[in-house]
Amino acid sequence: MDYCRSGFKPKRSLEIILFTSEEPTRFGISCLGSRLLAGSEALAEALKATVDGQNISFLEAARSAGYARDEDDLSRVFLKNDSYSAFVELHIEQAPILEEEGISIGVVTNIAAPASIKVDFEGNGGHAGGVLMPDRNDAGLAAAELMLAIEKHATESGSLDTVGTVGILELYPGAINSIPSKAHLEIDVRDIEESFRNAVINKIHKAAKSIAKKRKVTLSEFKIINQDPPAHSNGSVIKAVVDASDELNLTYKYMISRAYHDSLFMARIAPMGMIFIPCYKGYSHKPEEYASPQDLENGVKVLALTLAKLSLR
Amino acid sequence: MDYCRSGFKPKRSLEIILFTSEEPTRFGISCLGSRLLAGSEALAEALKATVDGQNISFLEAARSAGYARDEDDLSRVFLKNDSYSAFVELHIEQAPILEEEGISIGVVTNIAAPASIKVDFEGNGGHAGGVLMPDRNDAGLAAAELMLAIEKHATESGSLDTVGTVGILELYPGAINSIPSKAHLEIDVRDIEESFRNAVINKIHKAAKSIAKKRKVTLSEFKIINQDPPAHSNGSVIKAVVDASDELNLTYKYMISRAYHDSLFMARIAPMGMIFIPCYKGYSHKPEEYASPQDLENGVKVLALTLAKLSLR
Repeated sequence: MDYCRSGFKPKRSLEIILFTSEEPTRFGISCLGSRLLAGSEALAEALKATVDGQNISFLEAARSAGYARDEDDLSRVFLKNDSYSAFVELHIEQAPILEEEGISIGVVTNIAAPASIKVDFEGNGGHAGGVLMPDRNDAGLAAAELMLAIEKHATESGSLDTVGTVGILELYPGAINSIPSKAHLEIDVRDIEESFRNAVINKIHKAAKSIAKKRKVTLSEFKIINQDPPAHSNGSVIKAVVDASDELNLTYKYMISRAYHDSLFMARIAPMGMIFIPCYKGYSHKPEEYASPQDLENGVKVLALTLAKLSLR
Repeated sequence: MDYCRSGFKPKRSLEIILFTSEEPTRFGISCLGSRLLAGSEALAEALKATVDGQNISFLEAARSAGYARDEDDLSRVFLKNDSYSAFVELHIEQAPILEEEGISIGVVTNIAAPASIKVDFEGNGGHAGGVLMPDRNDAGLAAAELMLAIEKHATESGSLDTVGTVGILELYPGAINSIPSKAHLEIDVRDIEESFRNAVINKIHKAAKSIAKKRKVTLSEFKIINQDPPAHSNGSVIKAVVDASDELNLTYKYMISRAYHDSLFMARIAPMGMIFIPCYKGYSHKPEEYASPQDLENGVKVLALTLAKLSLR
């Protein structure tokens, strides 16, 4: 608005994109919108058979929301590689570094390569009172060992940037007096270096097999759901963010985004950059998530000036 | 029926008791019926404030089922100590010993002392990609460590009969890209020797505190839900079961019940005995639970003859 009022005239047009389903929710696929825009043939194909928790298909849901009225070919939404001269995203840091160091702006240089894995262990279960300890093959304990192995392998990968997390663990039948007969884990592994991350995934697979053997449980599933490559910000977009921060007298720092975002996928079809602002204790995905009005204002100003700069090229 | 037809006349009357809620279901309290009949003042008091998952109180539920119409004093159902001259229960073994050894009848001498514990760990959570490994305080990993510590302490208690199980583990918020900010565990610990079991409970408590300290998470709950004493079968009831098995030419074996039953509580107010029959692989609490028609028949015959013998005293 300020730019409009001041008579600023961009040479390139500016567009705002609102992506759907950045977090994996109704259909369990994160960054659904950007993955499709970026031309994921595999996803377009998979979505034909994807249903939600109420067995409503993705295409039915799209139609009832007013999209994809007459056809099922999702490849029509793929963007061409030269559609945009640059793509920029503004986000909270989701880690505590900027806040701790008192820096206003994070200039993202890389987005870590995410992977997610589903694992099932299965044992005989049984009554928690009736079966003696040596006779058990407890699927829950196999899961507990794998959780600690994932932590160990992520911590000892040789890269500080490697993270491994078990965010979902479900025990079946899930009763206090039943030995778990099945444990379902969902594992998230990331690094900005694909090779480090993939080495950790291999170690997790090895650990899962050896734990299953030792505990006489079955590793009935080890499925890599996605294993995306990392993304690197474009040099000229990075420079525009840095110049904007300098001009606005805001301190900045080059950063890695360990969380991934729609930018990870937009980087496949456009020169990409990301701007971070500080957030309270690095909290996100929880009610305590907070960014101060001042930091929000700084972020918006840097975004606007960055876009203004890029629009003149 | 056979005894009736043969003109058998007991000196004592025989009663069949159908207990409600032997497994912890609607109100989360196992052996609800026998605990109350056996005169648990604490339970009668606690039930006044107990509600189910739909917030329906125990007393409302009892009234709508046709019980407790005019009053809230559950102590009216307490049985007097001399109500029964003996109490006998027939059950599948819930362990594989009788089946493996090809023995028809288990004569229960003791019922293991059960205890159950609820534990909560709480950490800061955060984004699975955003927070580096050294900065985490992952409540799920604290739970995983405690699960393995429970196994270790139960296995190394010095008693083969000690069992420790985590049947319930819930991670919050329970998303693949969120570090668990809370983990809720429910733990079952048993032994026929109260002292062994209580020693293990103390070790679990110590382990939970030290894990919480090491991982910088909060041990926000460590609550012992119940910690019942073991029960011992009555000598004359044991003898009646043995005599009945002998008379029916059935092999038998003295056994410990590591699972607990309504008999654990009925033993508080009557001389108690239990009869076990073999079951498939010791399975229980799962669809594969199975006892053969022959074993069922053997069990019913031993029960009938035992009751006949006891009824003549």
